[in-house]
Parts: sequence; structure tokens; C-alpha cells
Amino acid sequence: MSQYWSKLVHSLTPYVPGEQPKLQNLVKLNTNENPYGPSPKVIAALQAEAADSLRLYPDPDSSRLKAAIAEYHGLQANQVFVGNGSDEVLAHVFQALLKHDQPLLYPDITYSFYPVYCGLYGIDFETVPLNARFEIAIDDYLRPNGGIIFPNPNAPTGIPVALSEIERLLKANTQSVVVIDEAYVDFGTESAVSLVNQYPNVLVTHTYSKSRSLAGLRVGYAVGDAALIEALIRVKDSFNSYPIDRFAEAGAIAALQDEAYFQQTRQQVIAARDQLVLDLQGLGFEVLPSGANFIFARHPKYAGEQLAASLREQAVIVRHFKKPARITDFLRITIGNTSQNQALMQALQSIVQA
Amino acid sequence: MSQYWSKLVHSLTPYVPGEQPKLQNLVKLNTNENPYGPSPKVIAALQAEAADSLRLYPDPDSSRLKAAIAEYHGLQANQVFVGNGSDEVLAHVFQALLKHDQPLLYPDITYSFYPVYCGLYGIDFETVPLNARFEIAIDDYLRPNGGIIFPNPNAPTGIPVALSEIERLLKANTQSVVVIDEAYVDFGTESAVSLVNQYPNVLVTHTYSKSRSLAGLRVGYAVGDAALIEALIRVKDSFNSYPIDRFAEAGAIAALQDEAYFQQTRQQVIAARDQLVLDLQGLGFEVLPSGANFIFARHPKYAGEQLAASLREQAVIVRHFKKPARITDFLRITIGNTSQNQALMQALQSIVQA
Repeated sequence: MSQYWSKLVHSLTPYVPGEQPKLQNLVKLNTNENPYGPSPKVIAALQAEAADSLRLYPDPDSSRLKAAIAEYHGLQANQVFVGNGSDEVLAHVFQALLKHDQPLLYPDITYSFYPVYCGLYGIDFETVPLNARFEIAIDDYLRPNGGIIFPNPNAPTGIPVALSEIERLLKANTQSVVVIDEAYVDFGTESAVSLVNQYPNVLVTHTYSKSRSLAGLRVGYAVGDAALIEALIRVKDSFNSYPIDRFAEAGAIAALQDEAYFQQTRQQVIAARDQLVLDLQGLGFEVLPSGANFIFARHPKYAGEQLAASLREQAVIVRHFKKPARITDFLRITIGNTSQNQALMQALQSIVQA
Repeated sequence: MSQYWSKLVHSLTPYVPGEQPKLQNLVKLNTNENPYGPSPKVIAALQAEAADSLRLYPDPDSSRLKAAIAEYHGLQANQVFVGNGSDEVLAHVFQALLKHDQPLLYPDITYSFYPVYCGLYGIDFETVPLNARFEIAIDDYLRPNGGIIFPNPNAPTGIPVALSEIERLLKANTQSVVVIDEAYVDFGTESAVSLVNQYPNVLVTHTYSKSRSLAGLRVGYAVGDAALIEALIRVKDSFNSYPIDRFAEAGAIAALQDEAYFQQTRQQVIAARDQLVLDLQGLGFEVLPSGANFIFARHPKYAGEQLAASLREQAVIVRHFKKPARITDFLRITIGNTSQNQALMQALQSIVQA
């Protein structure tokens, strides 16, 4: 607290990211990173950027990257916005497109950054409870609103919403922007990018931090109607002219160009998830159906916080959320590689059977 | 314009950065980049980051970088804030520390991003005219205010304010934050970092884009009292958890560690500036006294806009500002390397003597 702080600073409740431990040799299954590193072609493109040209600013419009993303999705470059991770993209989205007189709607159990953005920008919101199966029920969003946002698949549940349900929402909700946060979509959920040319009020956000194995590079993007993108550009150009550095642009373009590597690694993660679900069910866990690179699971006999602490004692870190009450016994577990998943299961076997 | 835009978006007047031309072989003296690339040790550190570890998020707190900056300046790590270029740092500064009931003060001729931030965050401001010699006159800031910000040296004039004058301001102005934007300080201006431990309301911002030859990497920072830094962290953690990617942190640390390279390149730029000033004066230009890596100059017989256009025809690009009226005949010219400065002088000789 300080007399020098603006009123806003006193009122903020910042987001708390998952731990990035400085210890080595932890089995790190807490922040949904990809167990596989980026493609060798991406590494090569990044090495080439370590050069004299770093003395020059990057392209403030990231034109080459926007063109590459547009081509990948069959869109035009003016339908693409890029940012320093999808969190920065989302921040601009909240300020530019989701602040209106009526309240923003999002699920009561979802990405915990959404209420933080609302606090930062003074956005009125109402949360919509997930149904008894922890699903997003589209009917519950069919009411007056200043905007709608949810992840698909939802986080931290991992449960997808069918594309037909999203289209039903867009047909009914034409007066406000609907943001589909597809951070995890590549692990088995249907993307709404196919709806962008039909509905002027849908915005779809993606990240390079999960399926593209580049959390350390900070690239995210949004696709939508050109008018929505223009709003984001206006905010971005009032905040920071050059958020995408030379490495980020080059690495992100190279990642899109190695489709074979992308398909191979995401299929490996999906296969490992399906195996892990079976293994956890064998130990008595209830696992919610996941279309993501993580699962959300609870055990009928063990409290979530205690399980997370016991795993940590065995050098396995997963994410536990202390609220809301409905999910306090769940663990969110990132899908690792084979040895990481085995280490998780060995640790759980020693805990759950103890 | 769109019904989906927030009210704010309709009202914004975004910043327009200097052109980043896609043509090669231009003599690019328009955005104050360093003519010398980063140190070979920085290049090596960056190459080492192109690795499997990019699948993991960076440290959200950039702890190693903060520690390195703190050590460099003889401060504590909790007196350091880092961001995606000093523009991002400044954006957070405006929102966290410069929005108060009384108006913010800054010069009428200064970095043109300041009014853009005020528009983005709804900050009331008053501009303080430079004196007849285009200098910041501290006496004009000794009045009630909600904050004070100016670059030192000022941009685009390049004229420095003496450290004793800044200390006089801090002694008189204790009720609001004074931000000294030292983007260009390493080219011959006294830094106010030495005042940080004595005055709890001074915040000093630096960038890696100029004297550190890393405009393409996007790193900037602020140093000040821990309470000021805490405000910035609260806003940053409500906006984007991980603005500093793995390359940015590693490259910025390596740059601080090669002091010899830093001293050599900045002295080369200073020496080239001093020569360029003499050469321009020889052509009849009036050149404002510069403590920066650029000079601000006008010719009594030629309009600024026309000179900039004529230079562009000869593949030399400099920056011309269309307003305010007092500076429309000035050109802001970045100090280049020897051959760039020669190309500039040859072009000017053909124009001015024609």
C-alpha cells in the first residue's frame, strides 16, 4: 500500500500462475506444457534469429506471422491478431470487446484469469454455473449479456463443448461478442475457427504454449471478423507497438510449417492421455472426459489438497485449486511423456494404496 | 467502427511507430536503433536458448534478470520491474502510478506515446511547454499535479536535464510520482538511478532497445522504491503472467555481463554524433544539443517535411513529426555507423546545396 498507487492498484487481485519451480528433476505436471519440445525446424529457425539484426525493432504488425496463421486457417491476414501469449491477447480482448453496459458471462468454474481481467478493466460480469456433470450448458447463456467467454475445452475441467452447440449459441446471440478460448483445442476438441467467416461476432483465441510446444516463446493469437481484429489492433497500438519479438515471430512461423511434427506430438499426447485415464480409473479415480492435454480427476477417499501435497513429496507436481468448493477435491494433471506419466502413477499407487 | 467495440476503442488514437521498412539497403536512421549489433556473448547466450526447454514457460517473475539488473545498478531485486520493452513498462506505469485526481504533467514536445497512454487509461493530463531553447524547465513543473513524466534526454529534442535539476524537482515534489524515462541516457546524459534510494517517489525507466543493441528482443525495465515496483507487479500480474520470454531474459542478462562491449559501442555512437553535429552545422543546420543517440536539427532554408521526402528519395530515412507546429521543420536523425552517416551527409549535400 502506498500513497503513490492509483486507486485501481489497491483494488486488484492478481492472477497466480502455476509454479515454475527452479529445482531440477521434478516431474512437472502442473502448467499444461507439452512434454515434447518444439520441432527441430523451429529450433533451427530460432538459432538463425540470434544475429546482428536484433539491433533492429521487429515488424510492429507481425505481418509475416499473421499471413502464415491466416493461410493455415484459410482466412485473411486482417482476420488475425497476434500477441505476447494468449494471455496478452485475452487482456486486449477484455478491454476492447467485452466491456459493455450489460454483464459479461462466463462459467463459474473456468480459467481463473477471467475475473482478474474484469478487475483490471472494471468489467461487470456474472458467472454461469456448470451443470451437475461439470459441463458448460449453452442454454444457460441464452440471456441478455455484454459478451460471453469460455474455454473450449473448458479449463480446468477439460470437458469440450460440441461445435454444433457453439453454433447454436452464435445463432441466438448476435448482439455481443462470443469468445471461444481454444488454448487446448488441438488435443481432441472441435475448433470454432470454421465459424469465423459466417458469424461476425465470434472470436477464437489460440496459443503456441500447449500443442505447439513453445510456452517459453510467448505467442498467442485471435481470429475473427476484421472489425473485431481492428479493435484489438487499436488497443495494442495504444499499449505497446512491438509485443512480438524477432524470435517469437520466426519461431511461430516455423512451427506452423512443420505440420507433420505437430500432428505426431499431439497424437502422442492424446494417446498418453487415454492410457492415463484408464490407469487412474484403475486406482479408483473419477476422471472428467477430457479434450485437452490435461485431466481433471478426484478420488472418493482422498482430499485433493492432501493428494497434491503427497505427490509433491515424491517430486511430482500437479495443480490443485482451493476454490470453488465444488472442485477442491480435484487435481488438474498435465499429460506428460511416458516416463513422467509412469512416475505419476507410481507415486499415486504408493499414496492411494497406503 | 462496430457495435461490438467497447466505448474505449471508439475513442482511442493509437501511437504510430516509426516505419520498419521491408525494403533492404535503406539507410535506416528513423527509429533510433543502435548501428552496432549485440555483443557476440549475447548472440551465444541466445543461441543456447533455442532448445527443448522452450516447451516450458519462462519464469513469470524474471528473477534472474531482476537480480542482474539490481546488481548492475547497486540496488535490490525488489526495486526492479521488467517488461516487454520499455513501452510495456511505461503502459503499466501510467495505469499503476500516474492516474490520480490531479492532472499528470509532461512536456508539450516529448515522446508521443504519453498522450496515447493517457487516452487508454483515462488519465487527465496537462502539457508543460518547453522553453524557447526547447529545454525542459523544472520550475514549470513546481505546481500541484497527479504525477510528472519526461524523458531524459528528452525526445525528440535530445536535450538533457541536469541531475541537480531533477533532484531539485524531487525535493520539491514529494506528493506524486516523478518518472524519468531514460531510454537514451547511456549516450551522454546523467542517470537518476543514483537517486532511487533517497527518494521514494522517483521511478527511472530504461530500455534494451538503444544502447544495448537489442530492439528486436523487447526488454525494458524500471527501477524505484519497492512500493512503486509492487504496484507495477500487481498490474502486470493482472495482465500477463509471462511477458518476458526465455530469449529475452537470457539475452538481457548476457548484455549486462559484457560491459566492455557496451562501453565501446556507446562511445563509438557518441563520437559519431559529435562528428555528425559538426558536419550538419557545416551545411547550415541548427542542431539542438544532444545527450542521445539521435540529433534534432533544422535548416533555415528548407522545410522539414520536404527534407525528409528528399532524403527518402535517396534511400535515407529519418523521422519527421508533423506536429506540434514548433518542430515541423526539424528532422530527428538517428546516429548511424560511419558509412550510414556518410550516406546521410552525401544525400544532404546534394539536397541542401542544390
